Amino acid sequence: MTEYNNRQFRLAARPNGLPKRSDWEFVEEPARQPDTGEVLVKVEYISLDPAMRGWMNEGKSYVPQVEIGDVMRALAVGKVVSSKSESLAPGDFVSGPFGVQAYATIPAKQCGKLDITVATLPQYLNVLGMPGMTAYFGLLDVGEPKAGETVVVSGAAGAVGATVGQIAKIQGCRVVGIAGGAEKCRYITEKCGFDAAIDYKAEDVAAALKRTCPDGIDVYFDNVGGEILEACLARINLHARIVLCGAISQYNSTTPPKGPANYLSLLINRARMQGMIVFDFASRYQEAGRDMAGWMAAGKLHGREDIVAGLETFPETLLKLFSGENNGKLVLKV
Amino acid sequence: MTEYNNRQFRLAARPNGLPKRSDWEFVEEPARQPDTGEVLVKVEYISLDPAMRGWMNEGKSYVPQVEIGDVMRALAVGKVVSSKSESLAPGDFVSGPFGVQAYATIPAKQCGKLDITVATLPQYLNVLGMPGMTAYFGLLDVGEPKAGETVVVSGAAGAVGATVGQIAKIQGCRVVGIAGGAEKCRYITEKCGFDAAIDYKAEDVAAALKRTCPDGIDVYFDNVGGEILEACLARINLHARIVLCGAISQYNSTTPPKGPANYLSLLINRARMQGMIVFDFASRYQEAGRDMAGWMAAGKLHGREDIVAGLETFPETLLKLFSGENNGKLVLKV
Repeated sequence: MTEYNNRQFRLAARPNGLPKRSDWEFVEEPARQPDTGEVLVKVEYISLDPAMRGWMNEGKSYVPQVEIGDVMRALAVGKVVSSKSESLAPGDFVSGPFGVQAYATIPAKQCGKLDITVATLPQYLNVLGMPGMTAYFGLLDVGEPKAGETVVVSGAAGAVGATVGQIAKIQGCRVVGIAGGAEKCRYITEKCGFDAAIDYKAEDVAAALKRTCPDGIDVYFDNVGGEILEACLARINLHARIVLCGAISQYNSTTPPKGPANYLSLLINRARMQGMIVFDFASRYQEAGRDMAGWMAAGKLHGREDIVAGLETFPETLLKLFSGENNGKLVLKV
Repeated sequence: MTEYNNRQFRLAARPNGLPKRSDWEFVEEPARQPDTGEVLVKVEYISLDPAMRGWMNEGKSYVPQVEIGDVMRALAVGKVVSSKSESLAPGDFVSGPFGVQAYATIPAKQCGKLDITVATLPQYLNVLGMPGMTAYFGLLDVGEPKAGETVVVSGAAGAVGATVGQIAKIQGCRVVGIAGGAEKCRYITEKCGFDAAIDYKAEDVAAALKRTCPDGIDVYFDNVGGEILEACLARINLHARIVLCGAISQYNSTTPPKGPANYLSLLINRARMQGMIVFDFASRYQEAGRDMAGWMAAGKLHGREDIVAGLETFPETLLKLFSGENNGKLVLKV
């Protein structure tokens, strides 16, 4: 039986504000061999997501917190190296909640088998993974865009946002993205086909929304919260839909978040603001995956991944999400 | 042609905070005789509503502002005394946007004819009027309560709130009302059949919600905004619905309103917060009126009116809404 040397990041402390290296413990030890029904997976790429910050906090949220001493939770893709399950064989490519580590010993039923002739492994963490599913169901099921409507998305150059905008274009909407920096704005207009981009670091968002959304906002897909949510609330149309998908501007805040002071715009406009979590749509991932793969094949939808090499860089690489340094879906290559 | 002496309150200034007598001009002059298609209505009862405060402000809302110099907008009921329309005759009882005045000259098509064998005139400003319609459509169409669910309503002893709670009981829900003062709390539990009442003036609302809603909140019907909205957001269940109907705690605020700091509870709980304005349901008022009249006849639904006599008392009487002094639907008897 081959022995595999595992390396992993365990949560050592609950961060106050931005997580720092001392909030983690780096552990090296042999990977546990699989029991009956389990597989041993060599982790190849790890998805780094804003939601991870919330999992590190104490207290009830939509999923249990990560306990102190546990391997940090993460979605990842990899290759089966040893199997005690009939459903998976060594050499199979799989995705699953493998955590921030080099090897994962995990029940085979928690793994999804991947067809790498359809997409690359990192793409299975992006458009064909959780960000893509989040964009698909959040926009189509919660946002309910209609052709001709104006859709605004924040975090627009991110993994979720860029996919939201491209799906909205496929639905026949006018699409405006809000992102930080000229490069990201160029990316969403030139590569993703957005009708307009707002650089929140360079211009006043409220004024820019007025210019780029002359007919108001029908759907706002919110990944950031804070002042950008307020600026969008101020321009929504009658019966607008706001999809609450995230609030990255608030995740590392050490003071209580500020609620949107103009939430009564929802009342005046008979609009709704609704939260969504992708896991609720798990029974429909296959349906979405078929649509998304079809759009990718047709050249209507693409993603880009920002791949950083080196498991050991995890604590610092994660911070790129909160500084906005990453260009595309942030992926850690083990 | 009989001449009628009109008395009216016109808006003289846009109030800062609570409206005061000097924000109004009291005018006496002969009522204008009706032109073709118009009627002259002797106004009997005037509805005083929290929404009136918003109409006095500068700026776009869901209805146009009242202009300086205009008669203050108000819904009212009265009796036709002179008609140049074939649809209405002298002696007919009608409701309509007659304003804060003793006589209104108005197109007959803006009047609704009332059957006073079904309900009293003040009841047509309460359960069978705008507050009742607001409660009916806000709860049933926007809140979508299901039997067995927990419904919480604030402003619970008010015209809208008391009706919301009673309709929720008719739907088979557990109903908790939030109101100010022991008398109001007794009213909603003893007369309206609420399962529990929270006196926000006497107890901590968050703690009281924990006690009275052990299974969490499925529908929260918000008439008040502010801290009570936050306390309810903290206890909502998965897929909860928050109906934004008003925010009386904010209407006279001279500082920007505070948004709900914990609005991300909507995300965690995949819940929605949705605004509603009763006018959107105008095509279905008859349907609602039939249901409501049936429930009233069956003794399952009742309202109470707080009737204050004297048109001249209008500026002071209106303030009872904001101090919470009124017991039931506040109505001014001309």
